[in-house]
Amino acid sequence: MKLHTYFRSSAAYRVRIALNLKGLAYDSVPVHLLRDGGQQLLPAYRAVNPAALVPTLDDDGALIGQSLAIIEYLDEVHRQVPLLPSDALGRARVRMLALTVAADTHPLGNLRVLKYLTGEMGQGEPVKLAWQRHWLQTGMSALEALLASSSDTGRYCHGDTPTLADCCLVPQVFSAQRFGVDTAPYPTIMRIHAACSALPAFEQAHPAQQLDAE
Amino acid sequence: MKLHTYFRSSAAYRVRIALNLKGLAYDSVPVHLLRDGGQQLLPAYRAVNPAALVPTLDDDGALIGQSLAIIEYLDEVHRQVPLLPSDALGRARVRMLALTVAADTHPLGNLRVLKYLTGEMGQGEPVKLAWQRHWLQTGMSALEALLASSSDTGRYCHGDTPTLADCCLVPQVFSAQRFGVDTAPYPTIMRIHAACSALPAFEQAHPAQQLDAE
Repeated sequence: MKLHTYFRSSAAYRVRIALNLKGLAYDSVPVHLLRDGGQQLLPAYRAVNPAALVPTLDDDGALIGQSLAIIEYLDEVHRQVPLLPSDALGRARVRMLALTVAADTHPLGNLRVLKYLTGEMGQGEPVKLAWQRHWLQTGMSALEALLASSSDTGRYCHGDTPTLADCCLVPQVFSAQRFGVDTAPYPTIMRIHAACSALPAFEQAHPAQQLDAE
Repeated sequence: MKLHTYFRSSAAYRVRIALNLKGLAYDSVPVHLLRDGGQQLLPAYRAVNPAALVPTLDDDGALIGQSLAIIEYLDEVHRQVPLLPSDALGRARVRMLALTVAADTHPLGNLRVLKYLTGEMGQGEPVKLAWQRHWLQTGMSALEALLASSSDTGRYCHGDTPTLADCCLVPQVFSAQRFGVDTAPYPTIMRIHAACSALPAFEQAHPAQQLDAE
């Protein structure tokens, strides 16, 4: 298996965690989102993923984009270390938590959005930073409320083993810390983040541990 | 079953389509996103969904948020009219297409984002409209490229029966048309949109057909 990845991409980070949790070996193919005007936009990469976004999983020639679709696929094809619960309501809850990050939080702070703010919209760095923090805080408040209000929350987002939801939570906290968001209002998220960070699968997926890290 | 919904919400629209395709009866509970400062933000609704977003499915007291999580749940619990293919690669492709809409396109044009642009950021209507169109065009270009480049695309997004991906495609086209996006560059999307629109399940889920339509 090959993973087209960028060390700091939140979405690629999620997939790296899932691959590590399942003990699946893979080769990283770096795609630099800032070099060459964005290597993900070049024809060579569009042939891999017409949506021109990272990550893309290449499983013996089968090309899959979208981090959550990739992780669900890995979970179906490689049954060891399940990343979704065995009951339908549990799976629904884990997907709900994952999408709270992947659909409601992360897309608003994506690199291309920030470039639009400072480019087409001509805004300065303070407005950009306020934007980033606003949506990180909005998203993390929602995730905290969902986690803190449910008895299904355990050592991890759902019970006492890591799931798809934890694969999303940890990269989101990385972004929040990178952009100086105060994490004190999110004690449940940060407790789970600490539990995850103690596991080698999460540690080895960290942006700083990647071959293309700067 | 009850669905907490808002007639114009793209995410609620997706779930209404899925419920109709499966022939599942449900009661609509309207949540008005503009009245009372946003009814989704009131304590009564936060008790239903701590993330304060529509839709929420109430299945005999079990509360599930996030449209994609809801549709996957419905598909697991009610097996008639499957909305995901039977093979793992097919499911991965359908989820990839669905997330191209639900994670990469829709969140950037959400009501709360538009309010932030004109509120906190003090931008006028032309900047807001340019923003909406830019992200609608970016997302639809990606979806068109994914659909047009694959022989798995059929009468619908994946083969010749509607899937989760079509539940996402149709509401996104509704938004694009509402905000005056030229749909000529997206012939595959529009061909699929026409095929879906001919089905009663899609027609009856349309915002204009809802009890809370204005």
